[in-house]
Order: sequence, then C-alpha cells, then structure tokens
Amino acid sequence: MREAREACGLFGIVGDAAAVLKTYYGLYSLQHRGQESAGIVSSEGTRLRLHKGMGLVADVFSPATLERIAGPLAMGHVRYSTTGASTLLNAQPLVADCAGGPIAVAHNGNLVNSGELRRELEAHGSIFQTTVDSEIVLHLLAHPDHAGKPDGLARTFRRLRGAFSLLLLTPRELIAVRDPNGFRPLCLGRLGGAYVVASETCAFDLIKANYVRDIEPGEILHVTKDGVRSERYTEAGEARSSFCVFEHVYFARPDSRVFGDTVHIVRMRLGAELAREHPAKADLVMAVPDSGNSAALGYASTSGIPFEQGFIRNHYVGRTFIQPTQGARDQEVEIKLNIVREVVEGKRVVVVDDSIVRGTTARSRVKALREVGAREVHLRVSCPPIRHPCFYGIDFPDPRQLIANERSVPQIRDYLGVDSLGYLSLEGMLRAAPGQPADRFCAACYSGRYPVPVEAGMRKEIFERGAPSCG
Amino acid sequence: MREAREACGLFGIVGDAAAVLKTYYGLYSLQHRGQESAGIVSSEGTRLRLHKGMGLVADVFSPATLERIAGPLAMGHVRYSTTGASTLLNAQPLVADCAGGPIAVAHNGNLVNSGELRRELEAHGSIFQTTVDSEIVLHLLAHPDHAGKPDGLARTFRRLRGAFSLLLLTPRELIAVRDPNGFRPLCLGRLGGAYVVASETCAFDLIKANYVRDIEPGEILHVTKDGVRSERYTEAGEARSSFCVFEHVYFARPDSRVFGDTVHIVRMRLGAELAREHPAKADLVMAVPDSGNSAALGYASTSGIPFEQGFIRNHYVGRTFIQPTQGARDQEVEIKLNIVREVVEGKRVVVVDDSIVRGTTARSRVKALREVGAREVHLRVSCPPIRHPCFYGIDFPDPRQLIANERSVPQIRDYLGVDSLGYLSLEGMLRAAPGQPADRFCAACYSGRYPVPVEAGMRKEIFERGAPSCG
Amino acid sequence: MREAREACGLFGIVGDAAAVLKTYYGLYSLQHRGQESAGIVSSEGTRLRLHKGMGLVADVFSPATLERIAGPLAMGHVRYSTTGASTLLNAQPLVADCAGGPIAVAHNGNLVNSGELRRELEAHGSIFQTTVDSEIVLHLLAHPDHAGKPDGLARTFRRLRGAFSLLLLTPRELIAVRDPNGFRPLCLGRLGGAYVVASETCAFDLIKANYVRDIEPGEILHVTKDGVRSERYTEAGEARSSFCVFEHVYFARPDSRVFGDTVHIVRMRLGAELAREHPAKADLVMAVPDSGNSAALGYASTSGIPFEQGFIRNHYVGRTFIQPTQGARDQEVEIKLNIVREVVEGKRVVVVDDSIVRGTTARSRVKALREVGAREVHLRVSCPPIRHPCFYGIDFPDPRQLIANERSVPQIRDYLGVDSLGYLSLEGMLRAAPGQPADRFCAACYSGRYPVPVEAGMRKEIFERGAPSCG
Amino acid sequence: MREAREACGLFGIVGDAAAVLKTYYGLYSLQHRGQESAGIVSSEGTRLRLHKGMGLVADVFSPATLERIAGPLAMGHVRYSTTGASTLLNAQPLVADCAGGPIAVAHNGNLVNSGELRRELEAHGSIFQTTVDSEIVLHLLAHPDHAGKPDGLARTFRRLRGAFSLLLLTPRELIAVRDPNGFRPLCLGRLGGAYVVASETCAFDLIKANYVRDIEPGEILHVTKDGVRSERYTEAGEARSSFCVFEHVYFARPDSRVFGDTVHIVRMRLGAELAREHPAKADLVMAVPDSGNSAALGYASTSGIPFEQGFIRNHYVGRTFIQPTQGARDQEVEIKLNIVREVVEGKRVVVVDDSIVRGTTARSRVKALREVGAREVHLRVSCPPIRHPCFYGIDFPDPRQLIANERSVPQIRDYLGVDSLGYLSLEGMLRAAPGQPADRFCAACYSGRYPVPVEAGMRKEIFERGAPSCG
Repeated sequence: MREAREACGLFGIVGDAAAVLKTYYGLYSLQHRGQESAGIVSSEGTRLRLHKGMGLVADVFSPATLERIAGPLAMGHVRYSTTGASTLLNAQPLVADCAGGPIAVAHNGNLVNSGELRRELEAHGSIFQTTVDSEIVLHLLAHPDHAGKPDGLARTFRRLRGAFSLLLLTPRELIAVRDPNGFRPLCLGRLGGAYVVASETCAFDLIKANYVRDIEPGEILHVTKDGVRSERYTEAGEARSSFCVFEHVYFARPDSRVFGDTVHIVRMRLGAELAREHPAKADLVMAVPDSGNSAALGYASTSGIPFEQGFIRNHYVGRTFIQPTQGARDQEVEIKLNIVREVVEGKRVVVVDDSIVRGTTARSRVKALREVGAREVHLRVSCPPIRHPCFYGIDFPDPRQLIANERSVPQIRDYLGVDSLGYLSLEGMLRAAPGQPADRFCAACYSGRYPVPVEAGMRKEIFERGAPSCG
Repeated sequence: MREAREACGLFGIVGDAAAVLKTYYGLYSLQHRGQESAGIVSSEGTRLRLHKGMGLVADVFSPATLERIAGPLAMGHVRYSTTGASTLLNAQPLVADCAGGPIAVAHNGNLVNSGELRRELEAHGSIFQTTVDSEIVLHLLAHPDHAGKPDGLARTFRRLRGAFSLLLLTPRELIAVRDPNGFRPLCLGRLGGAYVVASETCAFDLIKANYVRDIEPGEILHVTKDGVRSERYTEAGEARSSFCVFEHVYFARPDSRVFGDTVHIVRMRLGAELAREHPAKADLVMAVPDSGNSAALGYASTSGIPFEQGFIRNHYVGRTFIQPTQGARDQEVEIKLNIVREVVEGKRVVVVDDSIVRGTTARSRVKALREVGAREVHLRVSCPPIRHPCFYGIDFPDPRQLIANERSVPQIRDYLGVDSLGYLSLEGMLRAAPGQPADRFCAACYSGRYPVPVEAGMRKEIFERGAPSCG
Repeated sequence: MREAREACGLFGIVGDAAAVLKTYYGLYSLQHRGQESAGIVSSEGTRLRLHKGMGLVADVFSPATLERIAGPLAMGHVRYSTTGASTLLNAQPLVADCAGGPIAVAHNGNLVNSGELRRELEAHGSIFQTTVDSEIVLHLLAHPDHAGKPDGLARTFRRLRGAFSLLLLTPRELIAVRDPNGFRPLCLGRLGGAYVVASETCAFDLIKANYVRDIEPGEILHVTKDGVRSERYTEAGEARSSFCVFEHVYFARPDSRVFGDTVHIVRMRLGAELAREHPAKADLVMAVPDSGNSAALGYASTSGIPFEQGFIRNHYVGRTFIQPTQGARDQEVEIKLNIVREVVEGKRVVVVDDSIVRGTTARSRVKALREVGAREVHLRVSCPPIRHPCFYGIDFPDPRQLIANERSVPQIRDYLGVDSLGYLSLEGMLRAAPGQPADRFCAACYSGRYPVPVEAGMRKEIFERGAPSCG
Repeated sequence: MREAREACGLFGIVGDAAAVLKTYYGLYSLQHRGQESAGIVSSEGTRLRLHKGMGLVADVFSPATLERIAGPLAMGHVRYSTTGASTLLNAQPLVADCAGGPIAVAHNGNLVNSGELRRELEAHGSIFQTTVDSEIVLHLLAHPDHAGKPDGLARTFRRLRGAFSLLLLTPRELIAVRDPNGFRPLCLGRLGGAYVVASETCAFDLIKANYVRDIEPGEILHVTKDGVRSERYTEAGEARSSFCVFEHVYFARPDSRVFGDTVHIVRMRLGAELAREHPAKADLVMAVPDSGNSAALGYASTSGIPFEQGFIRNHYVGRTFIQPTQGARDQEVEIKLNIVREVVEGKRVVVVDDSIVRGTTARSRVKALREVGAREVHLRVSCPPIRHPCFYGIDFPDPRQLIANERSVPQIRDYLGVDSLGYLSLEGMLRAAPGQPADRFCAACYSGRYPVPVEAGMRKEIFERGAPSCG
C-alpha cells in the first residue's frame, strides 16, 4: 500500500532535437517515483539551462518553459523529499559552475557516508547550499584531486558509499553512473540515433524508445552525440549486486522492466508464491488497488479462487485534501477506497496487498469490509514484514511506526482484525524474479542485513541542520 | 472509454452540524460526474452563503472557506460544462433573491424546451445572466404565476420538459425533484437524524449514510430539520420511466447503486452477456481500465478465458498536459495507457471496453497491442454502437465525430484494425440490469427513440448567444 | 486623506479598431476610482464578450485576454465595493440576455430608491443574482413596459432616483446616461473618428482623445459607428444640478477636468481660500501627499509661507500589507508617510490636508511631527467637517466613525493634538470652482442637505441579504 | 528619472523578540532599492531559517511565513537583478553550511575582482551555484585559509575589491561590513536593547529605532545579544572614502540620512546650485515627480520662480503593464506622468529632473508639454551628464544607450527638444552635501575616474555562464 514514499526518478537523452520535450514525457512516466518537485536541465552545446519547481511535472512545466530551454541534450528528475527540508532549493537537478565548466547532477538513492564526505569537504572549504546528497557529488567532482584528472570521475564515484544511480550533464555529454551494488535501477535505451537513460523502461515505451540494456553496477556510461562509451570504476564482480527488491514489490511501475524482469510478471509470481505458502478457503480474491492488482491476479490464478473487484478507487484524491478532524487519515483512506457491497456481502474474501507499512489503510479497510458484511477476511501480503529502516533511498517512516516493529504476525493479525494473515516468506519473495539469483537482491528492510555498511551514527538529520526553506 | 463527458453531480444534506463539510466529502465522491467547477451553498437558517469556483473540489475549497459558510443545511454541485461558455458565471449552484426570499438551484440533466421557456420569460421581462438551464428554473419559480402559490413548485416543474434532477435550497428547506421520466438518478439517504440526497450512493458510503430509496420520477421531496415530506407534481404512472442506461454502461461509479442496481454488478452482467453474444477464441481477456474493468471480469468469468492486466494506467494524466504536436491526442492516450508487453506478446487477446465514442483511444491502443506482438486482437464493447445525440444531459461529441455514425460494424472493425469486433446488442444491454424492466430505460443514443420530444430546432447554441466569459 | 473609498470609474469607446485596448488604458487612468475589480465588455457587432476579475486593471487583464475580446465597441468599469459582498459576482459590467438581445451595464453612483424598485421588480418575478444597483437597471430595461418601446430608455431612467452615471452596451451601440442632478461626472471625447466616454478627462489624455463636452444631467447619448445622437429623458432644468463637490475636494485626479473645471486648479483655489480664512504664523507649508499637494501649493502661494516637502510617501504600500498587531492601522500610516526631520525640526509648520474623515492618519502624523521636533503644528483642511453620510455613491465609513460627528472644531483640534485647526467654510469651498455657481453642487456630506430625497429606511443593507460569495 | 535600477537594500537586527517582523518592515522601507526579490533569514540561536521569493516584500511574505521563521536575530535583503539570470536561485540572502556551521550573506554593491576570485576558488574546488557576488564571499569565508582563523574575517574582506556593504548572519551573530571606500551606505541604529543595521535610515524611522552612526569604511561590526564590537580590517585612512554620489542624486529615499546628510536637504541644495549655475527666465518651476521634487523645490526657492505641480503621476503603473506596440515605452511614460494643461498652457516652464539616463522619458514629456501649449521648456538636471558605466553596483544600461554618450550638451538639448538645457556641474554637485568633502565621493559615472581599479576585461558576463533559471 502507498505508505512508503518513493525517492526519485531519472531521465536523460542525447541526440534528439526534441530532447527537452522527450525528457518531459519521460518524467511524466516516472511521476510515481516522486511527486514533490520536478526539474529539467538542458544544453545546446555550450551552456546549461535549468527549470525546476515544486509540484507535479504537469504543473512545473509549460510549453513556453520547455521551448525556452530547448536543446539536444537534456536530463530531468522527479523527487519526493526524504527530509523536512522539502524546498525548491533542494529540488534537482542541481547545477553548478566549477573549474571544468558548468555541470548538473541528478540522483536517485542515498549515500551512507555522506556525513563523513561532507565533513571532509567542509574542511577543505566547501560550502553546502542544499541538504541533498547530490551536492556532495558536485563538490567531489570539482575537487582538485578529481577535476581535470583523467580518472577524476572514477575516483569520485569510488568515494561514494551507498545507493546512487546518477545522471550528470555537461554542455556536451550526459554521464550515467550506477553504484557498485546497483541498488537502484537505471536503463539504457535507443530512439533512432539518440540514446536515452531512465530509471524505468516505462519511460522508453512512451517515447517509443527501445530498451537496450541496464547500466551495470559500477559502470560509467558516457553519452554524446557521437554515441556511448562505457568505463568501469570498480572491478567487475568486486561488489555483489544488491538490487532493491522493494522496486519489484511496490516501487516500480508494473509495465516497467527493472533488474531484468517485468515488474507485473514478478508481482504475479509473488502472488502465486503467496497462494502456495498461504492458501485460503474463500469465495473470492480481491486486490488493494492499484498496487496489489498484479499479486492478486497471481494469487487468484494459482489458487483457483475467482478474482473480483471489491474496492473502487477514487482517483481524485490528492495532497490538497482537507483533513479537518483527528480521524482524517482514516477519512482519506475511505475516500480513496470504497467497497462494492454486493461483491463482498456474505463472502469469504482474500484481500491481497503488496506490502504493509503502518497498517493504517489495511486496518481501516478491513473494518469497512466487515461493516458491509464480509463473512471472513483473509489478508495476504506479497512480501515479508517490514521491520528495518532503509538507508539506500526508500523513505519508510520512522521504524517505530512500522506495524511489524515489535509485533509478531499473530499480533498484527489481531491488530488488523483479520481472520487470517499471511506474509510471503523471504525465500518466496526472492524466488519470484527469475532474472536474478535470490542473493543478488537487497532485502535489508525485511532481513536487517545491510549489504553496504552504514557510517556510525548515520542520521539523515546531519543533512538537515541549517536547512534553508524557500517558497 | 472516457470520451463522453459527464454532466453533473448533486449532493444535499439537512440537519447535520457539519453539513457543509459533508457536502464537500459528498462532492468529492461525485467528482467523476464533473471536473470543471464545484460549488456549495449553505444556510444557517436565514440567509444563503455560496462558494464556488473553477476546478476540482479539492482546489475550489479550503478549510477556511468551508468554515466560513458552515451551516446545518447545505447543497453542492460539480459540473462539466456542455457548452463553450465554460465560466465561473455558469458554475452552480446559482443563487438569487426573489420575492419569496433567497433561493439556490443545482441541476443535473438538460431541458429540451429551454428555448421556448426562455423566450416566454424574456417576453415577461426576465434577464438571463448565465447560459445554464438552472437559471430558467429560478425565473419560473419567481414568476408571479408560481411564487407564493400553494402549488407553485408543482406548476413550475410541470413546465419543464426533458431531464432534470434538481436540488433547491431556501434558508429553511432543501427540495429535491426528479423529472417524470427519471432520466438522471437521485437518491435519498439517512445519516443519524439528518437526511441526505445525492446523485449516486457512493456519496452516502463515504459519509457513512444509509441509502433509503430513490427520489421517484415526478416527486418533490421537501427536506427540513423536521424530516421529509413528499408530494407529486405528476400523476404516478403518467410518464413511463426512462432511466439513462448510459449511467450503468459508463457514467456512474461502479460502487454506486443507481436505478435499483449496483453498477459494478450490472457491468459484470453486461460483460457476461457480451461473452455469450460474442464469444472469442483467445488466450486472455483484458480491460481498458478503469471503465472497462467490471465488464471484462464478467466476460472472463463467463467465457472461462483468464482475466489479465495488459494495460497499466498512468493516473497523473490531467488537463494540464502539454500537447505540442498534431498527434497530441494520441500522445495523451499513450501516456495514459501503457501495455505490459509480456502479458500480450504472442497472445490472442480479448479487449473489453465499456463503450466506443470517437474511437481514437481504441484505435491507438489496438495499434500499440500489435506493435508489442499481440497475435490477435478481439475487441468487445459492452453496449451497442452509439449513433445518436443525447438531449437529456450527456455530452457526446458532435454526431459527425461518432465512430459509429455512417459506419457499419465491419467498417468500424476495419477502421480500428481488430481481428473481430463485437458490440453488445440493445436487448442484451437492457437485460443486464435486473432491477428494472428493459422498457424502463432510455437508450436513445443507441436507438434514436427519444422518450420526450425535443423542441423543433432545439440547439444548445440558443443558450450560447451573448455568453459572457469571466476569469 | 485616503480614508474615503472611491466608488467607480467608467470608460467606453465606439469606432476604434483597438477599442478594447483603449478601454484598458482608460481604466488604467481611472484606477484611483476603484481598485477592487475591473471589467471590460466588448462587441464585434453581434454579441457581447466580457472579461472581469478581482484586483487592479493590470492584474485582471493579460494581452491574451484583451486580444480574445477584441472588437470595435467596448466599455469598462473599475469598482470599489461599497458592501460586504465584495465578490466577482458583483463585479461590473453586468451582462444579460433579454428579449431585446444581449445588453451590458456599468454604473457609477448609488440609487436611493433601489429597495422600492427591487421589491416592485421581485413582485413582477425578477430574480436578483447580484447585490449591485446596476442589476436593477437591467431588469427595468427588460421589463415589458420598457423593452422594445420607443421611449423605453427614457421611461427606465425616469424610474431611477439618486446618482447614476451609466454606460450601456448592446452589440451595436454604446449608451451614456447621467442622472438629472448630474451627481457623478461623465464626459464625452473624440479620438479621430471614434467617440469616447469616461468618468474623468484624464482617461482622454492618455489615449490622446480630445475632450468635447460633459454628458448633461438628464441626457441619453447614443454612440454608434455612425456618430452620436442625444436625447433627454427629463426636461432641461427640471432638476437643479447637484454636482458632487467631493470630486473636486478629493476624488477626481488633479489632472482631470470635471464639472467644467480642472481639479488641480480648483484645489489650488481651495488652498488659497483656506489661507485667507485661516492664516497662520508659520515657517513652512507642507502637504499630506499626494491628495493635499494642490491645496498646499495654493495655501503657500497665497500666504507667502514657503512650500516644503516634509512628508515622504512610500508608494509600495498596498492591500497585502501585514498587520500583525492592534496598532496596525497606525503602522500602515507610518509606513506610508515618513517625515524629513531636517525640514520640520524646530519649525512652525502648516500641514494642509484635503479632508479629514476618521482622523486616524492625521492624529498619527501630527504625533510624529511632534516627535521629530516640530515646534508648532497648524492643520488646515481644504473643506468643511464631514458630518453626514453620502447616499449618492461615496463610501464614507459609518457616521459614528467620522471624527467630526458630535465633535466641535476645538474638540477635534484637541483630539488631533494640533496647535490650531482650520477647516475651509462651506461658502469658501463652493466658491473655489469658478465653472459652476455655488448652488450647483451637492455638499450634503458637509451640510446634511440632500438634494434628492432618500427612501424611508433606505439601507444599503437591503442589498446584502442573501449576498452570495464567490471565489 | 527612474531609468537606472537600484541594486539592493540590507536590513539586520539582533536582540528583538520581533526581529523577523521588524526586518519585514525594514525591507518595506527599503523597497525602492530593489523590487525583484526579497528574503529574510533568521536564527533562534542554533540554526538559520530562510524564506525568500521573487517579487515585492508584501508579496513574498505572509504572516504565516514570518511566524514560521520567527527568532531574535534576523536579516533581510531586497534586490534588483543586475544580470539576465534573474531567478530565485540568485535571490538573497544566500545560506550555506560550511565547516564553521551555517552562515548567511546579503550583499549590496559589486565586486570588481570577482572573475579573478572565482577562478582561484574554482581551482581550489569550489562550485558556484548562483551568479551573484555574495556567493564568492561565502566561499572565501569557508576556505581553510580563513575558516576558524582569528583573523579569518579580516583576511576574507581584504581579498575583496570594489563595493560591498555586507551583512552576515550566523546562529549567534550578525556581522556588518563595509568596503574600505564605503561606496554603499550602511548605518547602525538602536531600538531599546536591540541593534539595527540598514542601508538607509528611513528603515530606522519606521520601526522607531534611533540612528547611531554609519558603519565605517573598512569596519567589521559584530552584533550579538550582548552588544556590538567593532574591528577594522584596513587601517583607518588606508583608503580614501568614495561614497556613491548617485545615492544622493537619485537612489536613496529623500527622508534617509546617508553619508552624513539628509538626502532631501542635499537635493534641495543640488537644486539651489542648479538655479545659480543655470538660471532661466520662466513663469514656473515644476518637477519630474517624485525623484525631481526636492531639487525642483530648491531651484524654485533660489530662483524665486514659483513652484508648480505640472505633472500628475499615476501610481498604479507597475511591471505588469501591457505593452502591445512599438511605442510601448512611450505609452508607459504617458500613463505614468500626465500633464495639468492649465498649469503649463502658455507658460515658460522650468522642468527639474534629478538625472537623465536614456532620455526616453524626458523627450516624451517635453513633447507632451509642447502639445498642451507650454511656451518655453527649460530643462534643468541636478547632476552632470552620465557618460560612464558604474562597476560598483548601480545598474545603468549599456553605455551606448546613455543619452550623454557621444553627445554634447547642445546635441542633447536638440534631441530632447528643449529651449535650454542645464546640467549641474561636477563641482556644483559635489558641493551640495555639506557633511562630506567633495573629494570623498565617487562620481565615476560622470567623470570616468574610478577610485578602485577594475580587473582587466571585467565583464559582468563572466557571472552569467551556465546561469541556471528556476521558476
């Protein structure tokens, strides 16, 4: 369920006369990865031009704006702030002038040594004008140890720890980079003579680009009008891949291909595994729409229990919704998901959800199902209980707010008021993506096993001191 | 498919301290019936207070606004303009002062004798400040022949021809009226000591009101803090009911109960009929989401062909989308509906849509299905071809733009590029709503048989002369 | 001082290809007469097109808007609301369709028999959708007694009592009307082949039109592309003129010519009279800028005391100013008018103001003058004490808030804390406009002698019941 | 005349519970120094909070915003962009985190060695995210050579060349600095126990603070809750003062005290000198309002020719004005300044203006004076011809657009169409400010003698490369 907030979406393109417009479309496709700010930076060959703003892609850009920054190289970013300092100053891409000329950066992921890097850079004299990781990348690139050096990029990226799918834009080049573990997705596509890079392949579909391959963990890909050139800044195999499994479970769009598999297919398989692990005697299977749809279809198909549409979603619910009373969060859920009484009345229903974070939505909807007469409610969740924070770019709430924190599954079952509750096992989950071996995924939010060590006392808060706000 | 535009949604409540807030929630539930303007008028017992604006309910109202017009009687309206004069001046409710004091009106439907009434009223000296039917109602109510007369309301409503579900608000009373044919839905609900009226029952669910009954065709229902009182302005049975079947096919929300049946259930049955009338040899059944979902489930269930999710909908598409080129309408469709290649590649697919208006969306998506490798595409439509204009409140495009206008089904099949095309028959469609006999529906847009004669030369345009515009 | 609020400004033009743009400029010149809403209605020969909005002329209109309503006939209105119901619904011009076709009205002034007319019209069946006088005019024009009758206009205007400078626009004609007393100004100008009508001649200067003459009290002037045609609806001399002297004292722009005299010149003469009636032993004369400038120059010139600039006005003060504390009104005055200490320190100063309404500004600034060391402060006011409400279109505050209400001049002097206080006498004031005999002015706010009887129990409030609000 | 654009205004306060609100008022007073963006940064003792935006002070801040950043230390900035990159990213104050903690800077003036400093800092690894001088100051302060060093501030400011009145804010301290030449004003005031710093004393008047003294050229003033502490970073007298004389001529508000003199008094004296240098036989003296008012009064008083008000200014003219045609700039002037025909008709008039930059306004208004019948027009300008660019913070247009560039005074006279033209001499101008010896002023825009050498090839453009734009 939509209680975890996505981090960011990236899109870049080189060699297309309508690069800025295509970036706009690309960001539109990636809007689910971030709804708080959007930005595009472009180049006509010598200088960078930027437009960014708070809000949805459709609100931030007008035709006049896109026209004003038109150019054959462009990249863009959508973002959901992970800190309190959610302001225009922190919106990406970030653009800076440095010794090597102008450069822009857009970042999806989260560094786990940002405090250490920041202290080091500050000691060198760097000033930080934002509270986002991306600025660290700019400072490192501009540092005399790296700037103008043949291996400056590689040495910069070797300093970073954690999750980073990055796009850099200079006046003549787009550079795509992925961390050695490949936590976050990043794909390469082709559109006629142009090359395209995006967080998810759904962005390619819209502009009719073809998927070529994933940017590899540890790879630096240089894209210019003359084509692409790849280099590595880590030895291949130096780090084991740790792809974020939550992209498959919830984040990515079902029509996207990430980490080698189509998300919808993976989710169908998650549902199928779930049906095998946690069967139920029931009259119908229904999804918590839309994120639970694929898994519910998989569950229904494998269990042989008919798939039904018991929830109707109101798509007009947005952030401007008025919440006048204490029960407002409940109220929002009620507006968002209404029940078709005739479907569930007197029935034993299996409700399939992709994941449970706080449990607020689930509890409210279960109660509502009871009220309209559901005879039994069996909740099935297509991943294990989420018990640990993510340091690699997913914005879960404070661990104390996670429903599975310090609660056993039977306790959660009672809390939610369901007749039975089944979480997919870790093994079951990791088996569902056939394109990757199970050990190539990061499942730290379920297992607590963090593939990249987090700096002692790492707190995102370090980035919040002095956080400027700006309307 | 979403190519017909909805007319309006109504909500009213009397006897609840939070009447204005509940009206806000009610309009939120009815947002699908009109996205262009929203308004609420309330009373604290002596005077009416109005707030309305262009845009979605969530944008028009702020907590401060709701607070400012708080009162125990309230009613609201959402609207999609059916004329070019889509402006704030035309937004509803309309409020006027007349001899009997202040009165407000909100209207769902379309009068077919508006030109005649308007000419008559103008001859009497009436001035028209808007171009909406509702203003005619106000003038008739204020006319000395009706105002202050014991049967003034009844005599007013007997002058109106066509479709009108109306709400009137005076400082002490909410009045709900439905035309003798009952073209548009209007339901009565109860919430504790308060009475509620709404276009669809989904508005009751959100505020936890219970459905009581439909306002009857030809009924005037007076709602005050002391309860409800019903009168009739036509003899029962004087007019035969002609409920708009398109409410079931497409308009109403699937979780609503209209004309005695739950919409989702009716749509499932439309799909089932369709499967019987137009079977297909195929590997999977998929819907054009979201409006085709219910019928597709019905088709799958009856045909035994598995239901699959082949289209993924991007819910961020809105009216602000940038359309830079000729192919913009196509582009919008592409953004809205992407395909999961793995689901359809190499498959024989049945695509179920609720209806086809222009055919633009269908043609574009069929082409896209071919491109990703669908082997066969069988289109099934859960209603007959739409060939005639609606004069009772549904805003179809100009008949010349209807795909079924002057095209046979084989011609449409070729135009859309599908392997087979099956429209549900008129009889099949009318059979699907078990709560009403087939002859109680208006199906004029399919059959051309208009249950209420339309005034000679009726043109909506009569309402557009001098149409003022206002920012 | 700016404590009385202006009512309205009118502008109309026929026969110029850029009529809408010139109306925009004209309203810009008349902005001082109303800052709350602005509107323009135009005709291209068959229908009327309207754009209006809340705010300043420059904010309400964009180039695209002006282009969209372009046409060779146009008229516009700026307004300061005189009631609480200050909303877009009340913004002018009002446009309506009636039996005779579309018609628009814009009004400057105030009717004193509006309650009576409204009741009569309501009894006939008229519905009132706004709370402004102008709507009454539309209803009367549309009434079968008047509409289509050869003397319909004349009979309509003979029904109106009070102050009304009116513009009407039909698709082919602009009609300018002035009440029999001529309370409010209205002038005719010529620009090449086009005719122009405006509240003040400053609007002519900007578009380089030439002043021709005033519309006469009791005159109806028809302006078409073929020229002007005049008719009278009252006998000449039937009513004695009663021009609003406050237009000269404060309202009109100093560069305008109203009632036959240039305002700046009249104000200089007011200052000269004031110097004769209330001389002072002082070192310098200073104005409360900008409204007191002309009178102060006249005082200085006649008294021989040097004119100095002791107050500096901050022109950025607007309505958005933040008023956080009780003393906010004082604070606003302080921001608006600062003192040049060196000018007044140790000096005996004469401060000339055009008028004193509440006295808030005067008291605050006198205190400030003392604080920076003025030795003596002699306040001179270029009109008599304002003691009575205006029913003819000037929005003075509630009489209880007028400083001169129930206070003698010595009491006012003590309240304001000045060493001496001199108000110009009624006779002195009426002598200052050489273009008109003294008895041709309305000075009711000073004298209490109302030239047109006000209906018993007339309350603006009658227009406020049911006042709709609209964002 | 208002053709030169102001640079910036500064305000800071320490030790007042309502520091942020007072900063808001202070910026309101300084609005004439910059209308494009406004910002306030505050501290509650540990961290900095910033709000800034494009537009006027009244538009950028709401009561809620001021409340949100409330704290006992605050400083603010208003700005008129001097580059094309006029965007929110460039709005001040700038805030950054560096090794020493958070710090904010606000700057009035222009550095003349910014290119050199920027190159040096970039070589060290600094990245520049804005195109404003102020960012250079932050980088220098954070540099390891300065940060944490006892003389770090002094060493930083010794690196800067050119004009800089600066405010810095750390969580516990406000620091005010002025360049060794003191080009731009900066004053210290006291309000109860709080200290206040502002560009002009008019800001003190509004909040009722008392002027204490000017910050001295070459001084660093530390302001904390415990009081003020002064240090010098240059030897007293090391640099000769070069106060910008244009502050007296045009920039500063007449009610302000800058460089030891009250501006209005200086301008009166400029007018008096002008009368002596360039007498005229005329019937009246009139000002180009408002900036020419003081000098015109001085001219009138000295010459004995009566002062009259011939121009009326329309104060509603703003940046949103629509300019549809080529003559738009003329049109704007016409809207802004109308003429009182009766004042000038048949008269020999002396028009006094503070300065002439492009000459557009002057030429247009002289023509208009002729049209309404002025018999002779004698233009008097209270400063010499402006012929040279300013590198110290005043945004004159491109020298090629200066009317005095490559034109002799007789040529200018003919171009403007006046009967005689008199510019005040350099000596006359420098004599008018009694508080300072003539050689303590910078008059480079008149004389071409630049008191601080400008770096070879200095171009503001260096700051524009890669200039990001941001809505």
